[in-house]
Amino acid sequence: MTLASADQTFLDTLAAALPDDTLRPPEPRFLEEPRGRWQGAVAGVALPRGAEEVATIVRHAARAGVGLVPYGGGTGLVGGQIMPGGAAAPLLVSLERMTAIRGTWAEENVLVAEAGAILADVQDAARAAGRLFPLSLASEGSARIGGLLSTNAGGVNVLRYGNARELCLGLEAVLPSGEIWHGLRRLRKDNTGYDLRSLLIGAEGTLGFITAASLRLFPQPAATGTALLVVRDPRAALSLLALARDQLGEGVSAFEIMGRTGYDFLAEVLPEVRQPFATPPDWSVLIEVGLARGLDPAAALETLFAEASEAGLVTDGLVAQSEAQARDFWEIRERIPEANRKIGAVSSHDISVPLSAIPDFIPEGIARLARLGAFRVNCFGHVGDGNLHYNVFPAPGATRADHEHRRDAIKRTVHDLVHEMGGSVSAEHGIGRLKVDDLERYQDPAKLGAMRAIKAALDPMGIMNPGAVLRAS
Amino acid sequence: MTLASADQTFLDTLAAALPDDTLRPPEPRFLEEPRGRWQGAVAGVALPRGAEEVATIVRHAARAGVGLVPYGGGTGLVGGQIMPGGAAAPLLVSLERMTAIRGTWAEENVLVAEAGAILADVQDAARAAGRLFPLSLASEGSARIGGLLSTNAGGVNVLRYGNARELCLGLEAVLPSGEIWHGLRRLRKDNTGYDLRSLLIGAEGTLGFITAASLRLFPQPAATGTALLVVRDPRAALSLLALARDQLGEGVSAFEIMGRTGYDFLAEVLPEVRQPFATPPDWSVLIEVGLARGLDPAAALETLFAEASEAGLVTDGLVAQSEAQARDFWEIRERIPEANRKIGAVSSHDISVPLSAIPDFIPEGIARLARLGAFRVNCFGHVGDGNLHYNVFPAPGATRADHEHRRDAIKRTVHDLVHEMGGSVSAEHGIGRLKVDDLERYQDPAKLGAMRAIKAALDPMGIMNPGAVLRAS
Repeated sequence: MTLASADQTFLDTLAAALPDDTLRPPEPRFLEEPRGRWQGAVAGVALPRGAEEVATIVRHAARAGVGLVPYGGGTGLVGGQIMPGGAAAPLLVSLERMTAIRGTWAEENVLVAEAGAILADVQDAARAAGRLFPLSLASEGSARIGGLLSTNAGGVNVLRYGNARELCLGLEAVLPSGEIWHGLRRLRKDNTGYDLRSLLIGAEGTLGFITAASLRLFPQPAATGTALLVVRDPRAALSLLALARDQLGEGVSAFEIMGRTGYDFLAEVLPEVRQPFATPPDWSVLIEVGLARGLDPAAALETLFAEASEAGLVTDGLVAQSEAQARDFWEIRERIPEANRKIGAVSSHDISVPLSAIPDFIPEGIARLARLGAFRVNCFGHVGDGNLHYNVFPAPGATRADHEHRRDAIKRTVHDLVHEMGGSVSAEHGIGRLKVDDLERYQDPAKLGAMRAIKAALDPMGIMNPGAVLRAS
Repeated sequence: MTLASADQTFLDTLAAALPDDTLRPPEPRFLEEPRGRWQGAVAGVALPRGAEEVATIVRHAARAGVGLVPYGGGTGLVGGQIMPGGAAAPLLVSLERMTAIRGTWAEENVLVAEAGAILADVQDAARAAGRLFPLSLASEGSARIGGLLSTNAGGVNVLRYGNARELCLGLEAVLPSGEIWHGLRRLRKDNTGYDLRSLLIGAEGTLGFITAASLRLFPQPAATGTALLVVRDPRAALSLLALARDQLGEGVSAFEIMGRTGYDFLAEVLPEVRQPFATPPDWSVLIEVGLARGLDPAAALETLFAEASEAGLVTDGLVAQSEAQARDFWEIRERIPEANRKIGAVSSHDISVPLSAIPDFIPEGIARLARLGAFRVNCFGHVGDGNLHYNVFPAPGATRADHEHRRDAIKRTVHDLVHEMGGSVSAEHGIGRLKVDDLERYQDPAKLGAMRAIKAALDPMGIMNPGAVLRAS
C-alpha cells in the first residue's frame, strides 16, 4: 500500500473539519529524538483536544491514505516518534493538549488519565490521593502516558509492580478505522473477549491511538529504605536478590546493578556526582525496599547486608541513613546515562536474558567484543528483571568515530549472544524504527507472521505510524 | 465459511499422519460440562503428545475445513469446551497427555509446564522448588494449565498476584495456520513486537492451541494467617480492605465476601460444614494474609480486627488460631458453590463492577429482581477484585423449574445493571458459548469489530473452537 503525502489539499480539508488552531506547521522539537540519530520529516502537526478530534484526523487520513505519526513526550530511544524523510510526508499527531486526569478513585486504586498527561503529574496526582503510581523512569518529567503505554515502558520498579502493561486496566483508543474504543474500564477482572488492551499497549502506535487510560494505583509503602551494596560479581548479585526476596517478599522495589565502568565514567565526565566508595567497586547493587507498617526498612537492609556478608556475597556496602543519602545513591544510578552520552557510545543495547544466564552473558559478551577491537563496556541496569543496558564505548584515547565502521558488527555480536541465550534484543525500549531489522532477524517467524496479519487486519491502509515495528509494505 | 464434518475420510487421513492411538472415538467424559447444561457432539477425540502432533492436526483440519475444539480439564463453566450438536461435527483435541513440567528455575522464579499439566501438580512442583505458583481456584485438582490460560482464569489470589495472564511470561502455541510459535521466553521484559501472548491468553482456544507456558513463580510468604470477620455491610467490607492494605501492603492475598444466604444454604444442604458463628452473619469477609519474615500474621490480623472494630466496620470475628481452623474458614467459602448446585440456581452471574460501585450494586440488583418475582440471591466471591458471584435462587418452597421462563429476564436484569455501572458480564469465567449473546449486546462495538478482524486474520477458515466467543460466521 503506497501512502500519500499530507499535501496542502489534505491539510486544508482536515483543518476545515477541526476547530481552529488544531493543525500547525511542524516545529523543530517534533523532528529530533533524544540521541540525535534521526531528523524527522512531516508535513504538519495536529494537536487534538480529545478522542473525537483524533478520530476525525484518523478518518481523514484513512480516506486519503496519509500516514499518521503519534507523538507523546518525544523521549523514545528507538525512533518510534520520528518519521525519516524520503517517504510520503505524514501528519504528526501530538497528544500534548490531552493532559487531564479525568478522575481518581483512591478506594479502588484507580486513576484515569488522558494520553498527554506527563508521568510526573500522574505520580503527583496519585500521591495527592494517598496512593502510589509506581511507573518510574529517568524521563518521567517529560514522558507522556500515551507514549509510555504504547511502548510498554519499564523503568526501575518493574521488579515489584510490572511493566506499563501490567499497570493499565483499560483504554480509550482511536482505532485505524477511526472508531473510538470506549474501554476505560476500572475492573480487575474482565474476561469478555480478546485482550485488545494488551495488544495496543506496546504496539508503538501502529494499531491505533491510545487517547486515555485507567491506571492501577497501589498503597504507598509505609516506609522505604535504600542501600548500595558491593557484590563479588553478577552471580552474587542474583543470589543477593534471592536472599532479599526471601527476607522481604514483594518489598523489594528496585534492584539495579552497576559495574565499575559506570563509576569511572561519572568520575571522568561528571565529577560533581558524589562517589560513595574510596575505590569504585567492580560490581555493586542499588536496592530499594518499601515496606508495610511494622517493619523498619533500614533495619531490614542492615539484616540483609549482614547475612549477605556472612554468605560471602557482599564485601562492602552502605545503608542510607537519610533521605539525602538515599538520593545520592540514586543519583549515581540515574546519571550514568548522562555520563554515557558525554563519553559517546559506539553502540547501546537494551537487552534482557533469563536471570540465570546473566552471570555468563556479561563476560561472554565482553570476550566476543574483544575479538572486534578494544572497547569498554558499561553494563548497568535492572538486573532484577534480567534487563541490562549493555553499552559499548571506545577504549580510552579512541573516539566513537574511530569505530563507526564496526558499529553494525558490535550490535550483531551482542544481539546474537542475547538471542542464543533466549533473551530479547529490546527489553524495554521497543522496536521503533531503529530495530525493525533486529525484529525480522530474531523474532519467531510464526509470531512475526501473526503480527503482520494483525496489522493488516486492523490497519489495512497502513496509515498508523508507518514503518515503525513492521516494515511498511 | 462453512465447516466440514470430521468424517471418516478425514479421520483416516489424519490417523495415518499421527502415531498409533492418537485418535479415538469420543468418550462420554468429553461431552459433558460441569453444570450439565450442554451435551457435546464431536466426531472423534485426538490425544496428541506434543506441539508437533498438535500442528499436524491443525494443518489437516485447516486443509479440510474441519473445526477443532480444544479440551483441557473440562472444568469451564461457559461451554467453551463443548460443541453442541447441529453443526458440522468437529474433532475434539484433548491435551491431557502433555503434562510435563519441562523445567523449574527457582532462582528465576520461573516454571515451564505443558498445557495438559494439572494446576495442583504445578502448584506442587513450585512448592518443591521452594516457590509459590499462586493461581488457586476450586477446580485446581482437575483444571489444566492450557485451559486456565485460555480462559485467563482468576480465583482467590488475583487480588495479590493477578489473573492467569499476569502469571505467564511466554507461550508455545500452535497457530491456526499450523505453525508453531516458539515463545517460551523466561523474560520479565521483552518489548519486541505485539503482545501475542496476552492475545492468545483469554481467547478461549479461538486463535490457536496453547501447548506450553512459562509461568511466574513467587517467594513463598514466610507465614500466612486467616480471619473471618463480620462486617456491617458491603461498604464496610471495602473500607476494611482499604484498611488492611494500608496496614499490610501487598500482604493481603485473598479477600472474599459471603452473604448470609451462603451460610443458610450450607446449613440447609451441607450441614456437616462447621458454622463458626452462632447466628449466620449478614455479611462476612474471609481474609488471608501472607507476610514476609519479621511479621506475625495472627498478630497483624488481631490488630486489623481491633482497628476495624474501633472504626465501626467490623462487629464480630475470628482470627484462626491453627491451620485446622483456617481450613474450616476456607471450607465455608469453598463449599458454597456445591451448596448452590444442591439448591439449584435459576441463574448464575459471574460479574464484576468497579470496587466503589459494589455497595450500590448489591441492593439495587436485589430490588430489580424483586420486581420479577420472589428470589433469594446468594452473593459471594472475590470482592477485593470487584468480582461477585451473584446467583439467583427460587424462594423457599419453589424450585428452579418454577422460574425457568424467567431465566432470561433475570439474567438480563442483572447484566443490564452491571453494564450500567461500568462492569463486566464475565469477570473470570469467559464467554465460551454461553455468553456469546451477552458479548454482542454489551461489548463496545469498536472492540467487537477489532476482535472479529483479528479472528478472521489469524483463523480465516474459522476452524479454531468454532462458535466460542464469536459467533461462527
